[in-house]
Amino acid sequence: MTAPREQREFFAVRTVGEALAGFRPARRTGTERVALEEALGRVPAEPVRAPHDLPGFARATVDGFAVRAADTYGASEGQPGYLDLAGEARMGRPPEVALRPGAAIAIATGAPLPPGADAVVKVEHTQATLPALIEVVRPATPGEGMVRPDEDAPAGAELARPGRPLRAAELGMLAAAGVAEVLVHARPRVAIVSTGDELVARETPELETGQVRDATAPALAALVREAGGEPAFAGIVPDDRDALELTLRRALAGAEPGGAGCDLLVVSAGSSVGARDETASAIAALGEPGIWCHGLALRPGKPTLLADCGGVPVIGLPGNPRSALVVFRLVGMPLVRLVGGCTEPPPEPSVRARLGRDLPSAAGRLDIVQVALDDGVATPLFGSSALLSILAGADGYLVVPESATGLPAGDEVAVKLYR
Amino acid sequence: MTAPREQREFFAVRTVGEALAGFRPARRTGTERVALEEALGRVPAEPVRAPHDLPGFARATVDGFAVRAADTYGASEGQPGYLDLAGEARMGRPPEVALRPGAAIAIATGAPLPPGADAVVKVEHTQATLPALIEVVRPATPGEGMVRPDEDAPAGAELARPGRPLRAAELGMLAAAGVAEVLVHARPRVAIVSTGDELVARETPELETGQVRDATAPALAALVREAGGEPAFAGIVPDDRDALELTLRRALAGAEPGGAGCDLLVVSAGSSVGARDETASAIAALGEPGIWCHGLALRPGKPTLLADCGGVPVIGLPGNPRSALVVFRLVGMPLVRLVGGCTEPPPEPSVRARLGRDLPSAAGRLDIVQVALDDGVATPLFGSSALLSILAGADGYLVVPESATGLPAGDEVAVKLYR
Repeated sequence: MTAPREQREFFAVRTVGEALAGFRPARRTGTERVALEEALGRVPAEPVRAPHDLPGFARATVDGFAVRAADTYGASEGQPGYLDLAGEARMGRPPEVALRPGAAIAIATGAPLPPGADAVVKVEHTQATLPALIEVVRPATPGEGMVRPDEDAPAGAELARPGRPLRAAELGMLAAAGVAEVLVHARPRVAIVSTGDELVARETPELETGQVRDATAPALAALVREAGGEPAFAGIVPDDRDALELTLRRALAGAEPGGAGCDLLVVSAGSSVGARDETASAIAALGEPGIWCHGLALRPGKPTLLADCGGVPVIGLPGNPRSALVVFRLVGMPLVRLVGGCTEPPPEPSVRARLGRDLPSAAGRLDIVQVALDDGVATPLFGSSALLSILAGADGYLVVPESATGLPAGDEVAVKLYR
Repeated sequence: MTAPREQREFFAVRTVGEALAGFRPARRTGTERVALEEALGRVPAEPVRAPHDLPGFARATVDGFAVRAADTYGASEGQPGYLDLAGEARMGRPPEVALRPGAAIAIATGAPLPPGADAVVKVEHTQATLPALIEVVRPATPGEGMVRPDEDAPAGAELARPGRPLRAAELGMLAAAGVAEVLVHARPRVAIVSTGDELVARETPELETGQVRDATAPALAALVREAGGEPAFAGIVPDDRDALELTLRRALAGAEPGGAGCDLLVVSAGSSVGARDETASAIAALGEPGIWCHGLALRPGKPTLLADCGGVPVIGLPGNPRSALVVFRLVGMPLVRLVGGCTEPPPEPSVRARLGRDLPSAAGRLDIVQVALDDGVATPLFGSSALLSILAGADGYLVVPESATGLPAGDEVAVKLYR
């Protein structure tokens, strides 16, 4: 009886890989200008280019003497070269005089080279002699002990690229270039609707038997934030198809670019089969082109629905909190990033570990297994997907691919780590 | 001449490992209560315990029929068991009647089991017969198809532990438990002082030759944020010992617990040897016990200074932006976390890669090498540590340990990834 039922229930099952590659809604958030100090992790909407050479002048990288390299050729401990000490380069000030042949100018790390100098001899490669004379005991090559005016970045160089979240080093480069603001994608507004007759607001102090507080929405909101989005709680709806459709329409309202609606709609569906059917029906009514897939070859997380309703991606998640979070991490977070213009997501932490016990798995289905890590051993955590504690107790998860029928204990596995 | 000079300049050189293990200031930030939706990544200051059992009632995890398991023993396709259909469990409502022996109650995933039931038979393991009778074709074991009232967490269980930043799953558990606020450590206030005659504010539109905008402070501020701290720019100071001491004292002022000062003071020192000496002198004057180490066996990053000045950790960073950021990532971010009460930092992303070329390194010194990653090959990026672009162009870095004298091309290396 299982097979016909499943066919009825999930009429368009896809693999996670198919979903990630094939469900690529065109929607992108608009842009906004943010100050540099607010730009960490934000996604540039256009290349940011250096307005001028960086550092902009030839600069010493050692403490020593600015020289013409040719004046030092052949110098050695046995046969030092002698140069007239003709002054000192001042830090932060334009050079006052040019370097004449046969002369040297004392210079500290970071100071500008005088015109005519093409190298800096380290102080360690010189010896003090008369007050106005230095002995050079090693030859310098042109460019030694200095950086060129455009060596950090030539004018026009791309300092930050569109689609890649800004990191500390890029912010430093932008600051060096005098860039005060960056044009970034707006954070995707992600509306989260929770459904289920059993659900009550998480603020509810006392529960009746049968009631549960909405745990999924706050956890989803955290994942939305991790993916660079801005979550908005759009309400808890009982298992009533029409009430659900109304709430979903409200969350979508004004969802056109620049409107006040959402860029992405997430529905954590009721947990029973009937509730799921009603969720699918309500989502299907929201707009064209509608449902893209109904069911993922994934455990936990099969009852997942992906749709594009009038240009807004809609994700229908399984009712179990743990399944919902697994699916949202795998499929939802990449969608939040996509809509937010992020084409180069930050790397996910992972470690190699030995599998602590045999892991059964059905072929043709991606299995996501929560694991605890201890001393290089990944121990699978089993239990009902209704249990959120399994997820809270996990250090990360491992992926058993569709092709595998299980993994033997002792196998080396890659564990993706939660942070 | 090199050796005596280095000995003079760095009078208390330590390894990075010694610094991480040995420089453990006692300072911790105070605590504050934050709402659950603001708590992602925050560090609990005390264990958060479940105020009651979760989910709090026996709950179906499949769609089917609540039964007494004993009533199904021996049932098979050939010899089904028959149970009276005695009603339906309603989602979100307390059970209205107890289950009597020989009966079954229809139940959907998530609904509360009636008293007397100890298992749920999946609908797939039953067959419809008469309206008020069901056929069970597989026996159920006690506990099957359900979770116990305390299976997600018994009352008193630790839902979040002190010292570990809150993740999505913990927030879900706290929401399920009705926890609306969490007592967390306040974000460490990290004052950042930049020194150098050549430095100008990063807002400066036009530079004179010799001037550079302060790139280090905004990049450090980003790393402070990544580590959970709150950065504060405390000014740019010229290379003047007394002016520096004054600025540092101002940044420290009111730094006692609850005061308006800082929890951690970061000085990105001038780049010349003289400027570094003056920075060390100014820091040494700030308070007891004073300087803990002056110099790290690290490249880049040797001219690093760690001090505890009247209970506030002080980090003196090298003048080169790139060196400063390397040191701050290795030593500063762990200190920000420590002061902020974070004893279990989130995992760092890393990947295995093949080294693209030979990497020379001196024994006795930790080398941090920036690398670009392409198709599993890590290519070291060389260039002056004055160049921030090396860091911006890197996907991550690798660590050549003190014991190594280099790594051969083709070696498998662990690359720590920037995010």
